[in-house]
Amino acid sequence: MEKFFNPQSVVIIGASNSPSNLGKTICNFLTHIKYKGKIYVVNKNGENVGGCHAYINILDIPGDIELGIIFTPAKVVPLMMKKCGEKGVKNIIIESAGFSEKNAEGQRIQEEIDFISSAYGIRYLGPNCFGVISTHNRFSTFFGIFPGAFDELFDNPGKISYVIQSGAIGTIIMDFLKDDVIKINKIVSIGNKANIDETDVLEYLRDDNTEVIGMYLENIQSGKKFLDVAKSVKKPILVYKVGKTNAGVRAAISHTAGMVNNDLIFDSACRQAGIVRLQYINELYSIPKIFSMPPLKGTRIAIFTNSGALGGIIADMLIEAGFKVPLFSDGLQKKLKKKIDPPSISNPIDVGPITDFKIFQNIFLDLLSSKEVDCIFAAHNLWQKDVIYSIIDLFSLGIKYQKPVAIYLPISLEKIISIRTEYQIPIFESLQEAVTALSISHQHFIYMSRR
Amino acid sequence: MEKFFNPQSVVIIGASNSPSNLGKTICNFLTHIKYKGKIYVVNKNGENVGGCHAYINILDIPGDIELGIIFTPAKVVPLMMKKCGEKGVKNIIIESAGFSEKNAEGQRIQEEIDFISSAYGIRYLGPNCFGVISTHNRFSTFFGIFPGAFDELFDNPGKISYVIQSGAIGTIIMDFLKDDVIKINKIVSIGNKANIDETDVLEYLRDDNTEVIGMYLENIQSGKKFLDVAKSVKKPILVYKVGKTNAGVRAAISHTAGMVNNDLIFDSACRQAGIVRLQYINELYSIPKIFSMPPLKGTRIAIFTNSGALGGIIADMLIEAGFKVPLFSDGLQKKLKKKIDPPSISNPIDVGPITDFKIFQNIFLDLLSSKEVDCIFAAHNLWQKDVIYSIIDLFSLGIKYQKPVAIYLPISLEKIISIRTEYQIPIFESLQEAVTALSISHQHFIYMSRR
Repeated sequence: MEKFFNPQSVVIIGASNSPSNLGKTICNFLTHIKYKGKIYVVNKNGENVGGCHAYINILDIPGDIELGIIFTPAKVVPLMMKKCGEKGVKNIIIESAGFSEKNAEGQRIQEEIDFISSAYGIRYLGPNCFGVISTHNRFSTFFGIFPGAFDELFDNPGKISYVIQSGAIGTIIMDFLKDDVIKINKIVSIGNKANIDETDVLEYLRDDNTEVIGMYLENIQSGKKFLDVAKSVKKPILVYKVGKTNAGVRAAISHTAGMVNNDLIFDSACRQAGIVRLQYINELYSIPKIFSMPPLKGTRIAIFTNSGALGGIIADMLIEAGFKVPLFSDGLQKKLKKKIDPPSISNPIDVGPITDFKIFQNIFLDLLSSKEVDCIFAAHNLWQKDVIYSIIDLFSLGIKYQKPVAIYLPISLEKIISIRTEYQIPIFESLQEAVTALSISHQHFIYMSRR
Repeated sequence: MEKFFNPQSVVIIGASNSPSNLGKTICNFLTHIKYKGKIYVVNKNGENVGGCHAYINILDIPGDIELGIIFTPAKVVPLMMKKCGEKGVKNIIIESAGFSEKNAEGQRIQEEIDFISSAYGIRYLGPNCFGVISTHNRFSTFFGIFPGAFDELFDNPGKISYVIQSGAIGTIIMDFLKDDVIKINKIVSIGNKANIDETDVLEYLRDDNTEVIGMYLENIQSGKKFLDVAKSVKKPILVYKVGKTNAGVRAAISHTAGMVNNDLIFDSACRQAGIVRLQYINELYSIPKIFSMPPLKGTRIAIFTNSGALGGIIADMLIEAGFKVPLFSDGLQKKLKKKIDPPSISNPIDVGPITDFKIFQNIFLDLLSSKEVDCIFAAHNLWQKDVIYSIIDLFSLGIKYQKPVAIYLPISLEKIISIRTEYQIPIFESLQEAVTALSISHQHFIYMSRR
């Protein structure tokens, strides 16, 4: 699949200068992000689009084409596929809609396409999809995105890759991760997945430079194949699957035309294959930052806060999620008390109004080096510089001691996001997000150690 | 309790100009927000603080004092209480800490205070609290808040009032509601609640200009009294109670020294009294905006979106929360199809890329006037002006037809907050927040109709 992410030459079939043309937006975007391969266009009038040289017939383009993107009305797609086949294009993205998700005629066209692709040995993504994004290669086939809208993502290529059965979910993910510390590697929108499906992409991501895999699915093409591949993946796989209820199924069918599988079976299969099934769609982009930290190896959490109320709230949430908030041993309490005599030291630690870098650092060292603690959960609503620097320091210490750190700031979301962006600290946006992230980190660790 | 929120004259005992003095921050804040009553200070040197006239002895202050705020070390509090009693001050807020939440000596001082207060007929809030905020009266006794930090709240007094057993939770609430469409009326921080407790405040809020009541509690002083009063309240009561687990209980005891009650009993009591028990602390400030809309009278939700994926996700979430996403009748579908022929019309309605104000308005009218629909759940990731104006229009229509509207925008939180603030639309920050809000609106409606 490499050619889908890093083609030396690409042709956009059906891009034109007409005001409502969407193929044009891909040309403009590729030019804007300075994609380094050759970009050609094919349209009826042979008119150049967004600085990309145009041809009326794909066969007239000089040299090889590594990737074709088709954006014509559905009924013309078979002919364009055939021409691509003649030109020797082996990789195609069909972004047009109007196939099996629409009606019987669309289904017929789909069959024609399948016949042509197998005759010419073509592999294709879609139809009814957005194609791919590869930040490391500064490449994107997503339509309808304004140049400049996602510069941060291409300027900071990252380590999480997504497989999505909806372009809208793709843009939501991109919009959120602009403001987060974990960044995007690839996104693959599979749409109706008539040829390349979620399993094919998962297999590819298993072996590339991706470190965390996120998936938004409306159905599974082949359950067995999917699970076999998933079991062979060592990277965390986070899946949100729609279609848990009849109404959700109804929506999914009209969206990408998949047969929706039995949801309970999918659920138990996920557990077998070590796949993390997410409860909420926003977890697909909020949780991955936990994987920028060492895995959570045990369940004993130390809570560090300046608010007695928050200490209690967090303790409740952790225990309800299956964690332990153990009373520290006398030895550890004595050690901590040498540094500080706060309102509470037994766990939760409530330091009250103290905000001293050195004191905080000493407490963190005591906790992280202790055999009684697997992780520190820090929640502070005083955000003096000293507190921020302590938290930054806490992350380095966490890496040194190979224990993760969960951070939440009980301040407005605007402030959370601005501090997270400025200091590049993986702060969660809510307490429940932080707790869920710890559960998932531990779940992945346990699965990998058992294997 | 009226005098606590709107005193004609107030004295802050223990405020001084020393750098770490916290009483001073109350003087500065009251001066900044232009509190219209008289403000006096009592301290050892008789030094004026933040423009407030000072006395060494409270008895020297001319005229009556309607409210006293005590900020001295715990051991001096009994003497100050006594002097207040002699001066005829009947309402006091003890903000100092170091009482029963600390140790046996603190417990002893607490008993002395109780004796003095009953001898002089004094009612007091605290100790170990922040006191009150009343935006309508531009009055605040919260310490440690910078002048200007919450101007929006005092300039836009609102209709939700909070009873909180933690000042930190109070400032989190204030921080979040600056950016929301529902605004604060009063906040009462009850701390150790040795004299005035949550039930006293609840009883007061039952009859004042509050429309929605939020409570953060670590324990209940008297279960029976609390439930009797709660049952007499017609306004929605949203409660987050900590101490569901042993670790949470441990934290709560060291925080405000309450006896923690059996959590399961509290849970069932809430159901009897129509109290909404919240699952997450952020629901205390994110959910109330649903009460700016008509109540949800039934369970049939129409989903309106431009993304097939979102339609499916929302349908799943609503069904799992106990709602219905009914297939529209042929009659209603035919009516809708006259206006638009979108990817899906049966519910969810997926309008695809269309963003036409008139078309949207006609669809909303068909849905809201239909007997098949109790509420519209709208989620759009295209935010052209036309979509925004449609949503604003949808709210007026919802009020006209007495049906609520749940709005979520699948865009970044920064954009959600800026659109919510600019257009004053009650947009939720996540899908689950919107679903929970609808459940709570319906729960309150059902309870009130059964009564």
